This record gives sequence, C-alpha cells and structure tokens, in this order.
Amino acid sequence: MAPKESPLIIRDKNQMRKWSRTMRSQGNIIALVPTMGYLHQGHLSLINEAHKHANLVAVSIYVNPGQFSPNEDLSTYPSDFQGDIQKLLSVPGGVDVVFNPINLYDYGEIDSGGEGVVVVEGDQVVSCIEKSGLGHETWVRVEKLEKGLCGMSRPVFFRGVATIVTKLFNIVEPDVAVFGKKDYQQWRVIQRMVRDLDFSIKVIGSEITRENDGLAMSSRNVHLSPEEREKALSINKSLSRAKSAAKDGQVQCEKLKNLVIQCITEAGGIIDYAEIVDQHSLEKKEFIKGPVVFCVAAWFGKVRLIDNMEINL
Amino acid sequence: MAPKESPLIIRDKNQMRKWSRTMRSQGNIIALVPTMGYLHQGHLSLINEAHKHANLVAVSIYVNPGQFSPNEDLSTYPSDFQGDIQKLLSVPGGVDVVFNPINLYDYGEIDSGGEGVVVVEGDQVVSCIEKSGLGHETWVRVEKLEKGLCGMSRPVFFRGVATIVTKLFNIVEPDVAVFGKKDYQQWRVIQRMVRDLDFSIKVIGSEITRENDGLAMSSRNVHLSPEEREKALSINKSLSRAKSAAKDGQVQCEKLKNLVIQCITEAGGIIDYAEIVDQHSLEKKEFIKGPVVFCVAAWFGKVRLIDNMEINL
Repeated sequence: MAPKESPLIIRDKNQMRKWSRTMRSQGNIIALVPTMGYLHQGHLSLINEAHKHANLVAVSIYVNPGQFSPNEDLSTYPSDFQGDIQKLLSVPGGVDVVFNPINLYDYGEIDSGGEGVVVVEGDQVVSCIEKSGLGHETWVRVEKLEKGLCGMSRPVFFRGVATIVTKLFNIVEPDVAVFGKKDYQQWRVIQRMVRDLDFSIKVIGSEITRENDGLAMSSRNVHLSPEEREKALSINKSLSRAKSAAKDGQVQCEKLKNLVIQCITEAGGIIDYAEIVDQHSLEKKEFIKGPVVFCVAAWFGKVRLIDNMEINL
Repeated sequence: MAPKESPLIIRDKNQMRKWSRTMRSQGNIIALVPTMGYLHQGHLSLINEAHKHANLVAVSIYVNPGQFSPNEDLSTYPSDFQGDIQKLLSVPGGVDVVFNPINLYDYGEIDSGGEGVVVVEGDQVVSCIEKSGLGHETWVRVEKLEKGLCGMSRPVFFRGVATIVTKLFNIVEPDVAVFGKKDYQQWRVIQRMVRDLDFSIKVIGSEITRENDGLAMSSRNVHLSPEEREKALSINKSLSRAKSAAKDGQVQCEKLKNLVIQCITEAGGIIDYAEIVDQHSLEKKEFIKGPVVFCVAAWFGKVRLIDNMEINL
C-alpha cells in the first residue's frame, strides 16, 4: 500500500460518525485503534495489525478521564499531539482518520442531570468524571473480569475503559477494533463486553511490542529515570525465566510466582501483583494446565508498569 | 399507508442485523419498539408512534430474564405469541419485522466464562441471569436514575433494562426507538443511557394509553381479579385529583402525596411508592415548581401496577 497523506483530523463526534457511515456505505471496512496518544512503536504495531483486517484505519487519541481515579496520574499523563501525527505518517499504509475529541463526557446540558456532582455512597467507585459535575452517569461494567489483577488496585479502571470503548464504538461504528495484549486484562474485558452486549465488531488482540532490551513499550516509560528503566527490565527477564521453568516442568504457580516476585523485588521494584491466571476467565490457577497468562504489575519509583506473558504448555 | 402482510419473524440475531443493514443501505429509516410481548393497545400505540418517525418498524418480543430478580414474576409473565402477531396485523401500517429471539444471553461458550454461576458478593444485585450459569457478566448501569422509584424495590430492574436495550440496539441498529411513558423511569433511563453512551438513536417517549375507565394499560392487568381491577382504578383517579389540586394552587408535594396514598390505600391497594419528582433527574421535590411527574407503584393482590402523571404548572 502506498504511504498516505496526513490523516484527516476530526474533533466532533457527529462528524466522526458521518465519516464512518459515508465510508461504510461505499463498501469500506473500518478498523478502530483506540489510544490515549503519546504514541510509540507499540501503538504503531496495532495500526499495522489493523491494516490486515480493514482497508480504512481510524485511530482515536483521547485521554479518558473516566478510567482514572482522582488520585491517579491523569494530570501528568504524557501527550504530544503533533508528535503523534508525525509518527502516524511513518506507518506503512498510514492512517485514514484521527479522532481527537475535546471532551466525550460534556453533553452541554448539565442542568438536566440533577445536582451535577454525583454524591458518592458507600463502596461505590469514583473516577475523575463523577468529580467533574458534567452529569454523565452511565457505566458499562464487566463484573467478573474487571475485579482481579489491575482491578484490585484500580477499581474504576475497567469500568472507565469499557464505557469509553462503548462510546467510541457507537461514534466510530467500526467493523474491527484492535487492542494490545500488553493490556491483557483490558483486551479480555473488551472481548467479553463485545460478546455480552452484541456489538457487531471483531476484536483483535495484538502482540506486545518490546524495546530491544525486552521492556514492554508503554507511554508511561517516559517517566522512568535511566536507573529505574534499567531496574524495570527485571519484569520481562523474570517472566521469561518463569516461562522457561514452566516449559521445563515446573507447573506449581506458587513457585513460579515466587521466582518473579523475588527477581523484581531484588531489582528494586515494588510488586502490585504477580498472578498466573486462566487466559480467558483470568481466574487464578494453582497449577499450570492449559493456556495461562502470567500477569505482573510493579512500581519503579513513581511509575507503575504492567507486563505479561502467555504460557501455552 | 396500506395494511401490510404478516410481518417477517426473525429469531436469529445475526439475521436480524443483516435485515436492518440491508434495509438501511437502501435508504430506509428503522424504528424499534422493544416489548416483552402479550401486546395490548398500549403497545400498538407505540407502533403508531413509530410510524411517525420511520418508514420501517421492527418490534422485538422478548421477555428479558436480566431485568427480573429470582423472586419476581418471570415464570408467570404472560405470553401469547400467536395472539401478538394477530394484533400486529391490526395496526395501521403494520409491522415490518418481529424480532423474537430464544435466549439473548446464551453465547454457546459457557466454559470460557470461568465457573459459570456467578458468585454473589455483598450488596451486589442479582437477576435471573447470574443464576443461569451462561457466563454473561456485562451490565449497563445508569447509576443515578436507576436508584429511586421502581429501583428501590426492584434493584436489578433498570440494570437489566439498560443492558437488554443496549443489546437490542446493537442487534437491530435502529434509527429511532419508541418507549412508553407509562414506564416513565425506564424511558428516562434509556434517554440518559443513549446520551451517555453516544448511541446514534432518537428515543421517543409515547403517551400512556388507558382503558376507558382510566386504568393504564399493562400486560400485568390480566392477572387482576375483577374486584382488584376495580380497586386499581384508584391509582389514576387519585393522580388526576392530585393534578387538579396542584393546578388549583396546592404545590406542597407532601399534601399531594398524602391525597394519593390515602385514596389508593382506602381502595385496598398497598403502596410501594408515591413520589413527585423532577421530570428529568427524577429527584424528589418538596414543592411543585417547574415540570414534575407524579409516579406511583402499588400492589393489588399479587399484582404490582405502576402509573404516573406529568404535572406542568
């Protein structure tokens, strides 16, 4: 495919839907790659994957406040829109449209939402949206898959992800959507949501892209100091070691987990979780039999990184 | 419009979507009227309304287990599919398609959902779906509007309604959807959901259809004995009286509520709730100023009836 010109940039959701409907009515197949911007090679690999399933590719760039709790890093989440556009120009086949909305939770009718700021009761989860007073109150929840792993320390995260992806699906109306397997739980949450809500969208999971030294690519890596970055290599190293050990016959998850926890901790990381779970249900396993995935989250300084490795014995 | 032939009956969701997409690609506008069957004049009035906004009308007939709790009347909910089809033939302009799926929660892949039956924790709400072991776990919640009125005594109801309507929207992909204002809270929940999730669907609220004696039409009326039916007239009568009193200057909601509660209770009904609320936020009002709606739910024998009346002073 020949390299394309600069992508069309659309900020208005009605214009975005109009573009999609026009293109689809002409027989095009549209793939959506949802991102929060600050693109890196990992995102670009998702776009490459998208080209395999569609002849038009839409990339959304939107930092979703609905998936951040008020004490998380929404305000410091990195962004570089012009840099992102430059990177998109470098992708073979390019990108046809970039959807970059200002605020997908502002409906311009605050008054009808009652008192604005939502009163929070009991154990209800709260994101930056409830605090905004914009009156948004509808949330999509994948009640089992959202709970473990990242859901333990980030209780609003998957609710926010499922909701914004539903909104993007309803605005962009794609035929295909591509998600990175780096965010393994997110990928499974979206797959389940698409099934359970009968979205007519094919969800593709794209393999993790790693730096040459093995660090999984992430927009948050930019916040790592050189020392922290070096220490963070322990995540991928220890996962690889655990996978080898499993292939060599060690099927006790407790043993494999201890190996990873010890390696990351010795390198100076602080473990959030390290779990071996079923690839579909994400339920914890005691022994490896059948396809599992080893998921890890750990802090290096002020940066929380996640990574994972599928183990198919 | 000339009376139509028997509507096409579709049971498979993929076939349903295919029909819609084909029709839309030919420039048709499609309205969806979601029902649980056992149709009465109230439903037919929704279809009449639908014809005003679209040139093709789809009616779904599906008793949604997701909006019933295990102790509610799912098993006794009335149904008469052949009678329904006959009634649809009587509507001027007819109906183009009836979507009558068998089970919208069965994805034929129970195993991937983990252990099947969902373990219920703490104050989590539970519908007939969690008990089914089918692995469905995604729910749409309109967190504020779902709580009051019917949400007080039916905690799974609006979660189930919002979820099944999302599914139907994703399967039928209509341009317009018509809901009865008899289920006032449901109508507002769906409106808010459509706004918050960016569905490109126009939601129409259609006025309440009443029997000659004023009883709001409901599929559940069939379960009333003649005596209970007579007593149930107290709902509409008292609401009309309250509206008159308000128009005559009584703006204290407490006084108006007492009037209605007394009238229904004296007739032998047992009040579930009687509330005067804002028409949009459904928040309780102390005084009537601006558009409100008086919502009532009451039991007559084993039948729970709801009704409401807008008051626009």
